Amino acid sequence: MRYVNLDKTAVYSKLAEAAKIDFDFRKSLDAERVRKCSVGIADSLVYNWAAKKIGDDVIALLQTLADEQELIDKYKLLLDGEIMNTGENRRVLHQLLRGQLGKDVVVDGKNIGEFYKQELARFSEFAENVRAGKIKNSAGKKFTHAVQIGIGGSDLGPRAVYIALENWARKEGVAPLLKAAFISNVDPDDASAVVNSVPLDETLFVLVSKSGTTQETLANELFVKDKLKKAGLDPKGHFIAVTSETSPLARNSGYLDSFYIDDFIGGRYSSSSGVGGVILSLAFGPDVFKDFLRGAHEADKNALEGDIRKNAAMLDALIGVWERNFLRLPYTAVLPYSQALSRFPAHLQQLDMESNGKRVNRSGEPVNYDTGPVVFGEPGTNGQHSFYQLLHQGTDIVPLQFIGFNESQLRDDVMVDNSDSVTKLKANLAAQIVAFAKGQDNSNPNKQFPGGRPSSLIHGERLTPKTLGALLALFVNKIMFQGFVWNLNSFDQEGVQLGKILTKKVLARESGDDALDAYSKLLKI
Amino acid sequence: MRYVNLDKTAVYSKLAEAAKIDFDFRKSLDAERVRKCSVGIADSLVYNWAAKKIGDDVIALLQTLADEQELIDKYKLLLDGEIMNTGENRRVLHQLLRGQLGKDVVVDGKNIGEFYKQELARFSEFAENVRAGKIKNSAGKKFTHAVQIGIGGSDLGPRAVYIALENWARKEGVAPLLKAAFISNVDPDDASAVVNSVPLDETLFVLVSKSGTTQETLANELFVKDKLKKAGLDPKGHFIAVTSETSPLARNSGYLDSFYIDDFIGGRYSSSSGVGGVILSLAFGPDVFKDFLRGAHEADKNALEGDIRKNAAMLDALIGVWERNFLRLPYTAVLPYSQALSRFPAHLQQLDMESNGKRVNRSGEPVNYDTGPVVFGEPGTNGQHSFYQLLHQGTDIVPLQFIGFNESQLRDDVMVDNSDSVTKLKANLAAQIVAFAKGQDNSNPNKQFPGGRPSSLIHGERLTPKTLGALLALFVNKIMFQGFVWNLNSFDQEGVQLGKILTKKVLARESGDDALDAYSKLLKI
Repeated sequence: MRYVNLDKTAVYSKLAEAAKIDFDFRKSLDAERVRKCSVGIADSLVYNWAAKKIGDDVIALLQTLADEQELIDKYKLLLDGEIMNTGENRRVLHQLLRGQLGKDVVVDGKNIGEFYKQELARFSEFAENVRAGKIKNSAGKKFTHAVQIGIGGSDLGPRAVYIALENWARKEGVAPLLKAAFISNVDPDDASAVVNSVPLDETLFVLVSKSGTTQETLANELFVKDKLKKAGLDPKGHFIAVTSETSPLARNSGYLDSFYIDDFIGGRYSSSSGVGGVILSLAFGPDVFKDFLRGAHEADKNALEGDIRKNAAMLDALIGVWERNFLRLPYTAVLPYSQALSRFPAHLQQLDMESNGKRVNRSGEPVNYDTGPVVFGEPGTNGQHSFYQLLHQGTDIVPLQFIGFNESQLRDDVMVDNSDSVTKLKANLAAQIVAFAKGQDNSNPNKQFPGGRPSSLIHGERLTPKTLGALLALFVNKIMFQGFVWNLNSFDQEGVQLGKILTKKVLARESGDDALDAYSKLLKI
Repeated sequence: MRYVNLDKTAVYSKLAEAAKIDFDFRKSLDAERVRKCSVGIADSLVYNWAAKKIGDDVIALLQTLADEQELIDKYKLLLDGEIMNTGENRRVLHQLLRGQLGKDVVVDGKNIGEFYKQELARFSEFAENVRAGKIKNSAGKKFTHAVQIGIGGSDLGPRAVYIALENWARKEGVAPLLKAAFISNVDPDDASAVVNSVPLDETLFVLVSKSGTTQETLANELFVKDKLKKAGLDPKGHFIAVTSETSPLARNSGYLDSFYIDDFIGGRYSSSSGVGGVILSLAFGPDVFKDFLRGAHEADKNALEGDIRKNAAMLDALIGVWERNFLRLPYTAVLPYSQALSRFPAHLQQLDMESNGKRVNRSGEPVNYDTGPVVFGEPGTNGQHSFYQLLHQGTDIVPLQFIGFNESQLRDDVMVDNSDSVTKLKANLAAQIVAFAKGQDNSNPNKQFPGGRPSSLIHGERLTPKTLGALLALFVNKIMFQGFVWNLNSFDQEGVQLGKILTKKVLARESGDDALDAYSKLLKI
C-alpha cells in the first residue's frame, strides 16, 4: 500500500488546474441534474450533490484521486484489522461493532468480533432485565431513569442519538421508556442540575470512561455518589460502568455490572459500542439499538463500492477535499431540517474536527495543505432566522450539508394556510438549496443574492433508528476517506494532551510558567 | 459624519504593513502582560486580551482606526435616534431599552424611551400578577409553566438567557419559579414534544412575532391552540402576545394581553425588550429581568469611552477586525467555561453572523474586504474533548473567545484529588489559554503544539442576571463597532428574504424553476 501526501499525487496538479475554471452551477442546476446527481446510502437514505460546484470532469479527476490514494483498499485494510491508528499503534475497528465486512480480527488469540458480539449480548440482557424490573435498586425499586456520566465521545454521540430517537420511540409505543439524561462538564452546575432533575432512587447511572481516569468523569462520579449517600441510597446499587478491561473500573465491586470496549474503538467512534449501546438499550430496549447498528452496517457496506458515483461516503469525502483544498473553503455547515437532530451537528463537529484537524501526516511529517475544516450547524428552519444571513450574503462562501426527511417522527401536525408544518419545513429546505445555488438579481445590491453557494442534500423517508445509524456511519466513513486522501491518522487526538498536562500542573501549583500563574490568579484558583 | 469603507481609511495600509511583521506573543506572554492587558466591562466583568497576537504598535493603529471611523460619534448618533438602519430607514434603539444614554428620542410626538419604560412596567405588572396567582387560566388554575413561541431573535436570545439564569434563580431561592420552555422550529416534532412535556392547563403561552406574520410562529400557534381545545381549554385564556402595535396580533381579543415593541428593536437585539422580558419576568420575576437590564446598561455606558484601552467592546471589535482583515482569519470560536452558557454561543452566532454577514456597505455598494466571520462554540470543558484537537493542531488558526467565572452558580461541589470541580474547571481554562498561546515543542511532530493561537478571556465573579446583561451587551456593542469599521448596516437582514419568497412559491406550487420542482419531488412535497 502507498501512503502519499495529497500534494504528491499525480492528479493533484490537474485538480488545481481544474479549479481555475469556474463551473457555474447557477446555470446548470436543473431538474435533470437533480435527478442524476443522486446516490443511495442505506435504508432509504439518499445523498444528492446536484447543488455542488462540480462538473463531470472534476468528478472524473476525483475518481482518479480515489484510485491513486487507494481509498477502498485502505478501508479494506482497516476492516481487516491492520494498524491504521499509527500514532497509537492500534487497530481501528468501530465498523466491526456493526457487523463483519473483512477478515476475522484475532489479537493475542482473541477474536475481536466475537468479543464485541458478546458484550452486545451482555449489555442487551442487562438492559432487558432493568427494563423488565428484574434488576432493581438496593431499596427494591424499579429504575425509571438512566443518567450517563461521560465526556467527549462518551457524551456527544450517545446524547445526539438519544435526542434523535426519543420522540420516535414515544410515537412507536416503545415501552417502558426510561428517561435518559447526561452529565459531562466538570462545571459542577452541570451535575448538580441533572441530579436535581431526576428521582435519585429510581435512577441508574452509567459511568463511561475507556481509560477509567478521565478527570471530569471521575469528579462527576464522586459528585453523584455523594448525593446518593446523602439520600440514604447505596451508590453500588445505582452504578454500572462502561470501560476497557484494563481500567480501574473493570471488574470493580463498586458497580452493579461493567461492560467492555477496547483500544480499537476511539471515543468519538464509540456510539456503536457499549458507550452508546448501554444507555440507548436501557432507554429504548436493545432491539432499537440493534436497528441503529443495522443501518450503520448497511452504510459501511455501501462505502466499499469503488465507483465514487455509487459510494456516497467516498463521494462526499472527495467533494469535501475539492472544496477545502482547491476551492479553498475552510468550513462546512451541517443543517438538519429535523428538530430531532438538534445535537447531531455538535457530534459531527467532534467527529470531523477531532479526526482530521491535524497538521502532520500519518508518519508524523508536517503537510503542506489544508486538512479538516471547521464544522458547525444548527437545525433548520431555526438557522434561517439566525446565521443564514451570512451564508447568503456574506463575503465568504460556506459549503452546506442539508439533511431532511419526508415525514416527521411524531406524525402530529396542523394544517395552516393549506399546508401542514412538515410540508412547510420541506418547502423551506428545497427553497434554501435553490436560493443558495441560484441567488437572485436585484437592482438594489442590498437585496441581491449572488448565489453560487454549494450544498448537498441527504434525504430519507423518516428518521428511524436504522436511518440514523446509516446517517452517522455515512459521516464516519466520509471522515475516514478524507483522512486517507490527506494521508492523516484520523484516529488519534494528540492535540488534547497539552491542556491536560498544564491543568494538572495548575492544580498541583507547579505550573512553572508565570503567565499561567497570572491567569490562575485572575480566576482566583 | 463620514461613512468610509475600511479600505479607504488612511490607516488601512499601515495596518496591512503591520500585519507583515510577526508579533510573537508566544514569547511576550508573561505575568506582566496578563496584568496589563485588562479592561473592565461592568459588574465585575473584565476583558483580558493578553493572549491576542497584538502589540502596542498595532493597538495604537487600531485607536487611529477607531478615531478615523468615528466609532464613538456613530454610537452616540445611534443613541440619539439617528436612522442607523439605512436599508430599512429605521432608528436602532435596543440600548434605550436598558436606560437612556443620549437625547430624548421623539418620533411623531411619541417619546420612545417613555414607551419602552411603560411597556416594561406593563409586562412587569402582568408577570407579578401571574406569579402571585392573580391571573389564572379559564378553569381557575394557577400558571406554573410558560412556553415561548417564536423563532430567531424571538427564540435564541431569550432561550440562552433563560438557560443561563435557571440554576442561579433556583440557588437564590427565587419563588415561584415558573418553568419555561420554547417552541421555535416549524418541524412539528418540536411543538409536539414541548406540548407533551408541560401540563397544558397550567401553561401560559407567549406568542412572539414583531410582524405578526412569521410563518413558523403562526403555524406553531395554531398547533398549540388545537391542543388546548382538544384538552377542553380555552386558548384565549392561555395566550399572550408580544408584537408591534401595527401587527394583527395587537389589541386582539384572542389574547389575554399583548405587549409591544417597535421597529427600532431588531429581532436579534430584542432580548432586552418584552421579547425576552415577558418570559424572563414570568419565570424569575421582573426584578431579575431588571437586574439583567442594569448590567447591560453599565456595559452600554462603558462602550462610550473613546480610549480603546478603556472600552472593552470597542477593543474587542478592533482586535476582531485585525484578525479578520489583516491576519485573515475567517472564524471565531466562543468558549464559555460555564454550563449555564451552553446556548450562549448559538445566540452570539446569530447576533454576529446576521448583523455583519454582509457584502455591501450601508449605501448598498459592494465592499472589497472580508466582513463578519463564522462564529461557533460549545461550553468548556466539553469542547476540549471534541473540536479542540483542530484548534490546537489543525492547519488553520481559529481566534478564541474564552469566558469564565470564579464561582459556580449552584455552589454545589465535590472535592476530588484535593480540588473541587469549579477549581478544575478554571484550571482547565487557564491551561488552555496558555497551551494555545505558547504551544510545546516535542521531538515527535505529532505531539508538537505550534502555539501562536490567539485568545481573549472575559472573566467575572459569578454568572448573575447583572453579569449576564453586561456580557450580552458587550457582544452587541462589539458587533455594532465592527459594523461601523466595515461601514455596514448591521441592523437589517435582507439575506433572509429570498428563501421566504421561494418557500411561498413552493407551497403555492408556482416555483417557476424546474430544479426547485425536482427538489420538491425528492422531498415528496
